[in-house]
Amino acid sequence: MVTETASPLATAPADLPFDAWMRQHQERAQSLIARFVPQAHPLVPSLHEAMHYAAALGGKRVRPLLVWAAGECVQADGEALDRAACAVELVHAYSLVHDDLPCMDDDVLRRGQPTTHVRFGQALALLAGDALQALAYEVLTPEDEGMAAALQARLCALLARASGAEGMAGGQTLDILATGRAIGADDLMQMHSRKTGALLKASVLMGAACGKVEAAQQPVVWAALQAYGDAVGLAFQVVDDILDVTADSATLGKTAGKDAQQNKSTYVSILGLDAAGALARRLRDQAQAALDTLPVAQRASSRRLRELADLIVLRGH
Amino acid sequence: MVTETASPLATAPADLPFDAWMRQHQERAQSLIARFVPQAHPLVPSLHEAMHYAAALGGKRVRPLLVWAAGECVQADGEALDRAACAVELVHAYSLVHDDLPCMDDDVLRRGQPTTHVRFGQALALLAGDALQALAYEVLTPEDEGMAAALQARLCALLARASGAEGMAGGQTLDILATGRAIGADDLMQMHSRKTGALLKASVLMGAACGKVEAAQQPVVWAALQAYGDAVGLAFQVVDDILDVTADSATLGKTAGKDAQQNKSTYVSILGLDAAGALARRLRDQAQAALDTLPVAQRASSRRLRELADLIVLRGH
Repeated sequence: MVTETASPLATAPADLPFDAWMRQHQERAQSLIARFVPQAHPLVPSLHEAMHYAAALGGKRVRPLLVWAAGECVQADGEALDRAACAVELVHAYSLVHDDLPCMDDDVLRRGQPTTHVRFGQALALLAGDALQALAYEVLTPEDEGMAAALQARLCALLARASGAEGMAGGQTLDILATGRAIGADDLMQMHSRKTGALLKASVLMGAACGKVEAAQQPVVWAALQAYGDAVGLAFQVVDDILDVTADSATLGKTAGKDAQQNKSTYVSILGLDAAGALARRLRDQAQAALDTLPVAQRASSRRLRELADLIVLRGH
Repeated sequence: MVTETASPLATAPADLPFDAWMRQHQERAQSLIARFVPQAHPLVPSLHEAMHYAAALGGKRVRPLLVWAAGECVQADGEALDRAACAVELVHAYSLVHDDLPCMDDDVLRRGQPTTHVRFGQALALLAGDALQALAYEVLTPEDEGMAAALQARLCALLARASGAEGMAGGQTLDILATGRAIGADDLMQMHSRKTGALLKASVLMGAACGKVEAAQQPVVWAALQAYGDAVGLAFQVVDDILDVTADSATLGKTAGKDAQQNKSTYVSILGLDAAGALARRLRDQAQAALDTLPVAQRASSRRLRELADLIVLRGH
């Protein structure tokens, strides 16, 4: 998929240190949020303000980073890739707003700031979440940006399946049903593969969908990136569980120790801290091993995916 | 757009009485809900049950009826049209679930039944709404149903723009902000053109997008159906306001008199009952006049759109 407005960032030199690559792309995520979720908007100012608040307060932007890294792996760049990166972050942002509501996790702190409903009230937070979800599909379906219709439809399909009942919303339901009672490692994995894993994996696949891969190579590339996405998706959650125990609220930017307080089963409560850490590192190795199965052209440009697997497992918040 | 599975219903004889046509297509909506939102599902049973509950408890299915009627007007039929009809109803269903939540309208009765959160709890209702929104885009992006990618993307674009901040969610926000204080007729129209009007209009346009219209005729057809959609969208809300005053809860299937109780500005409170009724009839006439501007081929098959404008204005609930 080639567009008129090729992104200079997507062609960042391959020898750029990871930290610089990451910062560059985090800034790109921020500028896309500013473009698609402007804070000031004449129509319904308070709704747009709440949407912007929810989307702009950046975390690490792991999902957009995965989109861009997967895109780099398959020689994708430009407007379509940027829109995919933005759309997946909008869905993530909406899910956080809804998760934090009193009828869900009832959390008042997110990324070190008051959660959206604390700042804007529950009704606006609910609507901002709903509108962010719709906006994700607007971003994926531009009318005049030279983005192929087949790619628009493919990206919508990947995002919708990852975020609905079989994906994120289903996993969130399993999480709520499991709160306050002990569940086993298998159920926990089922829950997390949907709640967090599905959207992380979709990020990889959406980036991959924007690429230029020879038809004959497609199945191999797709299978490798699916395996990579499965492994990093699960690793992300295992590390989240570890950090909930080992980090403090200031570092996390959200209320630490919440899992134990809510009597939630986690990888740490089931496996113990050491075994959970070992699992996270094993999943990282699996993710990187999956990249080794890529055809030579894609393997040669899989560096950022490899580095992101490290980031996800070694991060401190 | 032609698909393998042409719908026998979409080719219902043109001389079928409107009531029979309507019942036939309401049943079709019900069967699509059963197909895409099955009540029993092994994955996350309670979420699917809540989604099914919210979607299956039928109202009049005005939005799907508009999709089918517009489709008939432009010689569309088959799988794509059915999916468009279903998707728009799923978005409508999700919006009702969220609107009824305690932090929004706090309503306990909908279509004569307990609202979704009363039946399933607030967390599941919230998630069921979120998942229904995602499902709408899944329904519009089948991977192997012979539905052209360009049409998939177009339908996603129309639906997303109608349901987000510039459409339904924005209108809902204006509604909440206006509760408890008097607003003028212009603000009321602004609010309703988004809250209710945008999705009703999108229903017409999504049906139209599925059609076969010569390129040269496209702008005229599109403009006529946009004008029709604007008029019926507004008429629908004016009549809703009238019914809130004149009908009882049992007839409405929801709590009557809620607008006055919440001190909401309505067309009735601003214009009075008689003038509101006159406005509704004038909008119906505008809608039907818009159909008269259609090219001859489409005008000849606009009967169901004409009849739906009557239904919307003359309905008793």
